[in-house]
Amino acid sequence: MLIGKVVGSVVSTRKNDNLIGNKFMIVETYPKFGADSQRVVAVDNVGAGMGESVLVATGSAARIGIGDESAPIDAAIVGIIDDATGVE
Amino acid sequence: MLIGKVVGSVVSTRKNDNLIGNKFMIVETYPKFGADSQRVVAVDNVGAGMGESVLVATGSAARIGIGDESAPIDAAIVGIIDDATGVE
Amino acid sequence: MLIGKVVGSVVSTRKNDNLIGNKFMIVETYPKFGADSQRVVAVDNVGAGMGESVLVATGSAARIGIGDESAPIDAAIVGIIDDATGVE
Amino acid sequence: MLIGKVVGSVVSTRKNDNLIGNKFMIVETYPKFGADSQRVVAVDNVGAGMGESVLVATGSAARIGIGDESAPIDAAIVGIIDDATGVE
Amino acid sequence: MLIGKVVGSVVSTRKNDNLIGNKFMIVETYPKFGADSQRVVAVDNVGAGMGESVLVATGSAARIGIGDESAPIDAAIVGIIDDATGVE
Repeated sequence: MLIGKVVGSVVSTRKNDNLIGNKFMIVETYPKFGADSQRVVAVDNVGAGMGESVLVATGSAARIGIGDESAPIDAAIVGIIDDATGVE
Repeated sequence: MLIGKVVGSVVSTRKNDNLIGNKFMIVETYPKFGADSQRVVAVDNVGAGMGESVLVATGSAARIGIGDESAPIDAAIVGIIDDATGVE
Repeated sequence: MLIGKVVGSVVSTRKNDNLIGNKFMIVETYPKFGADSQRVVAVDNVGAGMGESVLVATGSAARIGIGDESAPIDAAIVGIIDDATGVE
Repeated sequence: MLIGKVVGSVVSTRKNDNLIGNKFMIVETYPKFGADSQRVVAVDNVGAGMGESVLVATGSAARIGIGDESAPIDAAIVGIIDDATGVE
Repeated sequence: MLIGKVVGSVVSTRKNDNLIGNKFMIVETYPKFGADSQRVVAVDNVGAGMGESVLVATGSAARIGIGDESAPIDAAIVGIIDDATGVE
């Protein structure tokens, strides 16, 4: 999983039916967890808010994270980080 | 998922049978969502047009996006973006 | 999917049994579809020849592309490109 | 798989239910096994401690590593390295 | 798949039970098949020796390569290369 900060969100009206009801957040990975200022769109599974540090699962783990195998999703926020060492 | 802009399309006559009927678009990722000017070929699932900003699902999520597990596809446009914050 | 040009091939006698009968081509991705001069070994599914521009599916999509779930393959040529815009 | 050193850990109280009980470690890949100082969050499956060199499996292999297909996990520590050649 | 040369091996005593009996080799990808001097740990499926050029399958293809869906493996050597064009 990667660690990042919620920096934005996405609004999409015309989208795949199986994406309806999901909240799309933009997460910027912490510098050591991706390329420079790398960002990813992740579906929020845990009620993350702007500016919070989160744990993001990618690939097939993302669908497991949101509990919907029919959703075309490859990244999901699966935890909010309270504390961490070795991040920076 | 990544965010990008539709910048082109691909025509392929000799192709895998399970790709017939799909529309192949070229999407350039927004700078923070990939390497510099990175592009990817994605199957269009939502009627995206040239120049539109789109949400692209990759890996096994792409086949879920187009609803065809027999199609050899690893990237699909699954939403058209109306509005977003934190993209740039 | 990525777009590239067939630039070579690989001969392997001692290999996994489920790879027997496959043709291994080396594809160099177009500059915007990978790192600088990035190459990948892909199994040919559509009769691609040297110098042709091709569409390559990666990950589990590759096995779907060659129609053999028992083959340890993570990249397959699934289409030959006739025409394209937005590639360069 | 990649090779790295355990450099930290993550505490997350609000998280996906299927992550409860897992230990999240931060692993810094050895220089030749990732980008410069690249780090990843991996679930510990073998009792790895701070500073130990470990083997990390990614993608769907991670869920197999922890023996829980319902956990939204994409990286797991699956071995502790006693000795190695060709790492540096 | 990627192409590389076997440059080392890994010894791990404390490891996931489903990894017991596997041989872990370190493969350095050929320059055009990965980042500069990129290395990966791959399970050997074909009896590859030090210095040999090999074909490596990644992701779920690796488990198919070693014929064990219960092994937490994301890279496997699936062929030894006799000859190739377009590699360098």
